[in-house]
Amino acid sequence: MIYLDYNATTPLEQEVTEAIVTALTDAWGNPSSSHEAGIKAKEVIDNARQNVASMIGTIPSNIIFTSGGTEANNMILQSAIEYYKQHYNDSSTDIGDTINCLPHIISSCIEHPAINEYLKYLQHSKQAEVSYVPISSTTGRLEVTDVIKHIKSNTIMVTVMLANNETGIIQPVKEICHSVKSLVRHEGETQNILVHTDAAQAIGKISVDIRELNVDYLTVVGHKFYGPRNGAMYVKGLDSNDVPLYPMLYGGGQERSYRPGTENTGMIAGLGKACELVSLNREVYEKTMLECRNYLENKLEEYFPGRVHFNGKFEGTERLPNTCNVSILGEKYHGYKVLSRCKILQASVGAACHSQNKPSSILLAIGIDESIARNAIRISVGRSTTTADIDRIVEDIYQAIQSIDQE
Amino acid sequence: MIYLDYNATTPLEQEVTEAIVTALTDAWGNPSSSHEAGIKAKEVIDNARQNVASMIGTIPSNIIFTSGGTEANNMILQSAIEYYKQHYNDSSTDIGDTINCLPHIISSCIEHPAINEYLKYLQHSKQAEVSYVPISSTTGRLEVTDVIKHIKSNTIMVTVMLANNETGIIQPVKEICHSVKSLVRHEGETQNILVHTDAAQAIGKISVDIRELNVDYLTVVGHKFYGPRNGAMYVKGLDSNDVPLYPMLYGGGQERSYRPGTENTGMIAGLGKACELVSLNREVYEKTMLECRNYLENKLEEYFPGRVHFNGKFEGTERLPNTCNVSILGEKYHGYKVLSRCKILQASVGAACHSQNKPSSILLAIGIDESIARNAIRISVGRSTTTADIDRIVEDIYQAIQSIDQE
Ligand SMILES: Cc1ncc(COP(=O)(O)O)c(C=O)c1O
Ligand SMILES: Cc1ncc(COP(=O)(O)O)c(C=O)c1O
Repeated sequence: MIYLDYNATTPLEQEVTEAIVTALTDAWGNPSSSHEAGIKAKEVIDNARQNVASMIGTIPSNIIFTSGGTEANNMILQSAIEYYKQHYNDSSTDIGDTINCLPHIISSCIEHPAINEYLKYLQHSKQAEVSYVPISSTTGRLEVTDVIKHIKSNTIMVTVMLANNETGIIQPVKEICHSVKSLVRHEGETQNILVHTDAAQAIGKISVDIRELNVDYLTVVGHKFYGPRNGAMYVKGLDSNDVPLYPMLYGGGQERSYRPGTENTGMIAGLGKACELVSLNREVYEKTMLECRNYLENKLEEYFPGRVHFNGKFEGTERLPNTCNVSILGEKYHGYKVLSRCKILQASVGAACHSQNKPSSILLAIGIDESIARNAIRISVGRSTTTADIDRIVEDIYQAIQSIDQE
Repeated sequence: MIYLDYNATTPLEQEVTEAIVTALTDAWGNPSSSHEAGIKAKEVIDNARQNVASMIGTIPSNIIFTSGGTEANNMILQSAIEYYKQHYNDSSTDIGDTINCLPHIISSCIEHPAINEYLKYLQHSKQAEVSYVPISSTTGRLEVTDVIKHIKSNTIMVTVMLANNETGIIQPVKEICHSVKSLVRHEGETQNILVHTDAAQAIGKISVDIRELNVDYLTVVGHKFYGPRNGAMYVKGLDSNDVPLYPMLYGGGQERSYRPGTENTGMIAGLGKACELVSLNREVYEKTMLECRNYLENKLEEYFPGRVHFNGKFEGTERLPNTCNVSILGEKYHGYKVLSRCKILQASVGAACHSQNKPSSILLAIGIDESIARNAIRISVGRSTTTADIDRIVEDIYQAIQSIDQE
């Protein structure tokens, strides 16, 4: 079998597993304990925090560890809501009537459920008003001007993923952030619009640097870059309260009380190591994956001349180097059907938690025709994927298509 | 160094680490993926769920994995609040005026911060009314009659830990549950009072069986019984909605949408293995630890005749087999001071997240005199602690006391 579903999850790098095992074996103490066993564990966590911070160009105090991307995303959204409640929706604060209503969040219609479902919950429970900015069908991405158009007096947050998990399309987060932060806010409006990006799919594949992006919050998800199943969040100037963060959980005071619970030292050590590897090798990873992906797309065109459509490819729009979202054109070639006939390819029709035989809402949102979207297969290559692997899986897809033809 | 702080955290059993490594290596796929890599991961999780369920005498569908005890505890409390909101505080439901107010939760004043701090948050944010039932200074534990006395028309939940982390005192949870469930509720009162127990400290040390306890919710914390830093919760008849559970997080639908986020397969496998070991060996663990702890207490009395006070020892009250909370009597023998003079003993003055030089609020709550509470040292033995270890640490404490005397 050849696994080409690296956007769903990645295996752990050997060094990551080793870091986990070492931490589990040597640093199993409770990081809050004041004796040696505790101090050792605390050091492992400090070191990991440093590695996460360095990877994205920030300082360790701006990093909070979480159980994963879902928790990080949810918590950041909830923080915006809570901040609004405390600053703009308190009857004792007189900031003009206009914004004395629900907080408004702007997002896109191609976010991961870890954003999207939380937003729906916020809407449903009448805690927030949400705008889902449509995607340009010319560029396949969210356009800055469209985001800005949706800003209102009660807008408290803009959350846009850095790269889409199904298409690999990179969103103009830096530009969105710049525009949002340049807005002059008037009296009776929220004074600062917080910007978050879910960088789950971008880290380890393209350069992700806080100093460039300038966002207020950023989500890190270990298992998308050969790390473990935990995560972290970046919060700008956390210790100086530059931007708000509120806990979802309450307990023993860990993570400066923002995220209590005895620290998962092993996983945290693994995340730190995975970040260190990205800091050291990201450019090599990017180059290797890009070559492989491009080789794949050329091969597919060669095998299916005039019959392939690359769903994430838009003139002038950047994509992740590893992601190929492709439809083999033809009425019978539904993505799930093609994959079920493949003998060695392990890929998916979209996000792992997505149901099999509906066309992807993300592809529809970027303007892909339903008949094409139905046929989509997401092939995402990894660090060690070779062109020989590609040769074999393209043959595999070819025989799958033939077998459907012979039905 | 001799580690006797097993109530703060435990090392992982070799077999647990092995289960984690095997899962990380062989079952790293995304459990939601429909290809083989995903299916394999899902199997590991199913198997672990079975092991957790068997350990406490229930079926796998009643188990939800969480990131740890803090999350499990918080989520259970929040579920009670949410349930009340939806069933008793909705203007459309006419259930009499009496309970159309805040939900009422009953707890004890010796709970872990993962309960206690969440309750404080609920009170502070005006989401709940909370009663902290005092502890009997005769028995050192919560008495059933005192719990029942606090029940009101709007009481929605009773949450009491199964065994206290600092004293090891076992609470009459089974009896509390029985009494609460026997109450006849009238119109205008909550019809069912949910009972939760945080079994973090009990599992692996004493028998913990749902069929006996009969609680609605129970919290499992891996790292207290030689497992990893994640957790699980038992929810009675979850699939048939016997008792309510509401998610805190929203995302990709994992854990039947109660707890979304790509599953931490490695840690879950480790938790499953730790539970399996408890199912197989709990009685042996219990016996070994009990012998060691009793040996320790005898030794301490021998070394400090008439000068030791065992803070968790009450006539007729059961304690965990591994916990010895002891004060060496004397003005200068503050617990943290004695520990700082110890050369080989790693123990603590109380919970790991507790500040060093205040007397433990838990000890004060059970009626220990402040002057004695200040001197408390919590010594908690583990599965492999030997009487030879005990000999050495008692000597160590002895020399620490001598060194204080010579100041
Ligand atoms: C873009 C994006 N955000 C967030 C997540 C959620 O991360 P997790 O499921 O690990 O919590 C994922 C992957 O599953 C993702 O692709
Ligand atoms: C009684 C009790 N409940 C809950 C917890 C919390 O678990 P965690 O910190 O792993 O979330 C602990 C231990 O820390 C505990 O002793």
